[in-house]
Amino acid sequence: MTGRKDVTGRHLSFDDMVATLGDVLRANGCSEQVAQTLATNCASAERDGSKSHGLFRMEGYVSTLRSGWVDGRAIPVVEDVAPGFVRVDARNGFTLPAHDAARALVEEKARQNGIAALAIRNSHHLGALYLDVESYAEKGLIALSVVNSMAVVVHPGSTKPVYGTNPIAFATPRAEGGPFLFDFATSAMAHGDVQVAAKQGRQLPPGTGVDANGAPTQDPNAILSGGALLPFGAHKGTALAMMVEILCAALVGGQYSYEVDWSEHPGAHTPRTGQTLIVIDPTAGAGNLAPFAQRVEALIQEIRSGGPVRLPSEERYPAREAAARNGIAVDAAQWDAILALKAPAQTVTA
Amino acid sequence: MTGRKDVTGRHLSFDDMVATLGDVLRANGCSEQVAQTLATNCASAERDGSKSHGLFRMEGYVSTLRSGWVDGRAIPVVEDVAPGFVRVDARNGFTLPAHDAARALVEEKARQNGIAALAIRNSHHLGALYLDVESYAEKGLIALSVVNSMAVVVHPGSTKPVYGTNPIAFATPRAEGGPFLFDFATSAMAHGDVQVAAKQGRQLPPGTGVDANGAPTQDPNAILSGGALLPFGAHKGTALAMMVEILCAALVGGQYSYEVDWSEHPGAHTPRTGQTLIVIDPTAGAGNLAPFAQRVEALIQEIRSGGPVRLPSEERYPAREAAARNGIAVDAAQWDAILALKAPAQTVTA
Repeated sequence: MTGRKDVTGRHLSFDDMVATLGDVLRANGCSEQVAQTLATNCASAERDGSKSHGLFRMEGYVSTLRSGWVDGRAIPVVEDVAPGFVRVDARNGFTLPAHDAARALVEEKARQNGIAALAIRNSHHLGALYLDVESYAEKGLIALSVVNSMAVVVHPGSTKPVYGTNPIAFATPRAEGGPFLFDFATSAMAHGDVQVAAKQGRQLPPGTGVDANGAPTQDPNAILSGGALLPFGAHKGTALAMMVEILCAALVGGQYSYEVDWSEHPGAHTPRTGQTLIVIDPTAGAGNLAPFAQRVEALIQEIRSGGPVRLPSEERYPAREAAARNGIAVDAAQWDAILALKAPAQTVTA
Repeated sequence: MTGRKDVTGRHLSFDDMVATLGDVLRANGCSEQVAQTLATNCASAERDGSKSHGLFRMEGYVSTLRSGWVDGRAIPVVEDVAPGFVRVDARNGFTLPAHDAARALVEEKARQNGIAALAIRNSHHLGALYLDVESYAEKGLIALSVVNSMAVVVHPGSTKPVYGTNPIAFATPRAEGGPFLFDFATSAMAHGDVQVAAKQGRQLPPGTGVDANGAPTQDPNAILSGGALLPFGAHKGTALAMMVEILCAALVGGQYSYEVDWSEHPGAHTPRTGQTLIVIDPTAGAGNLAPFAQRVEALIQEIRSGGPVRLPSEERYPAREAAARNGIAVDAAQWDAILALKAPAQTVTA
């Protein structure tokens, strides 16, 4: 399928976008397999309307590769440590190929044992977390995943950033249509959104962050200049941010967000931390009592029956359909900038 | 140990409190084993300063037993469905004895498989959820648990309560002292706190609930008269409330919070829903890379180094120490009311 053009910009087919992004990543030190995995993830986020994890990120990924901070050719080492537990050393590579290397084993263990865990360390997470869990739900499994990152979030009462934006993603099959899922940062706001507000001179909602003295602020510049974000939902979101750190660093044998030190790699944008994924086979739970996917559907119908509600991430379905029909709309200037990343680093930085 | 008295009220030893609460529960239809389990849980919450799940609840438990809605003599049926999955039919009894019946098997499976799940259905949850997860962390395991209840929380945009207050609890061992844990409702406020605010004529913070038309309100009476609570943390807390329903109803083969129908049992206070528990053996994750409990300790020290922070549930330790020294302080009138519950139902309701 080739994308069609329109007058305001370009439309690319999903396959064409993946192919070009793969070229860019290969030109910047990724192996064939790593480039393919990352390009597919990035194009999927862009296709789904998850722009913050789509093409927008390519410059950062390339910059990180060029800085030497991440190994685009790393070959992950999968360890089958227990009947329900898989461990992966990503060997300073990206998380996505490390996950792919363990995926079949994790799925098999979940079906065999009812539940299984995957713990990835020495890894750089890239892309939207919902794509990691959605793939299991499409195969009839429940998946829950957490990722830590670099410290930009304070514990309330502290002046020292300790947590990453630490997202939590969950996906489950349902009877009608694709998986139900959610994916949210445990910080009050995404870091990128603070930067956008600063550029636009906008104040932030109360509870978003603190200044360098730990005092609450609604000024995005105060957050960006020595301040930090706060967790969402006061002490509850804080507790979740802490749980994510424990599950992604202590449990996997890797680094906390506050331990990331990329000072010797200017240009690095992807923190080397960890990821944990828990996969459950719902047939172990409800068994023959009631078909799981139909029960999930019943909940969704009950929720909808009460008014015009919005379910998490449901906007990705119309976005996907539109992309399949018309191709994915891209901003011409953004796309040209990505194409320019295929040239060697010295040309770009000259 | 016998508690000492002081001038303002009574102090009871933990053991004396358990014995008396057990008598009350037996007098109201609980078997020996169920009475012992429930009394221990209730006294533990009271001892830890978790008053909302301590003595305060006894009247509701007894009322529920007298209503015939819960079976205080139920014998749970444990099913070993997969190497990492245990299922329990609580047979319309309380969740705590159902959990106890499966506890050793779940722990064994977690150590064998790295991770294990417990799914309890047809059960009435009672007591503080943190006690459920703390017991695993005291044995070196990580535990995460969720419980649904009766529908008092709306999905934003809806006028129909669908979620329970749906708490999430997590516990993990740490190197120094007892487990780190948290336990919070996914609703913006506990239902009991709304009732207290109504009595005191206080307005609630924005975002707490909606009136009968689904419009935001800060009036506790509007929430209590046909309105409902909102989830905490806007769309993020809402997503978690939904996840709890899926894990506690669809996954376990049990009831959603909105399916609870106790209309024929006036006096019932404990919803018949479900509970899911996930237990992880941290030695499967980090292995010999770094001792898990020491890594958790390192995170806590880093958090504390940034300022005067509060960690979730840490206040229970001084409360426990004080109770061990002095006994548990009880309000004389509250205790007398509990003692009166030992009398047959007809006497009390006359």
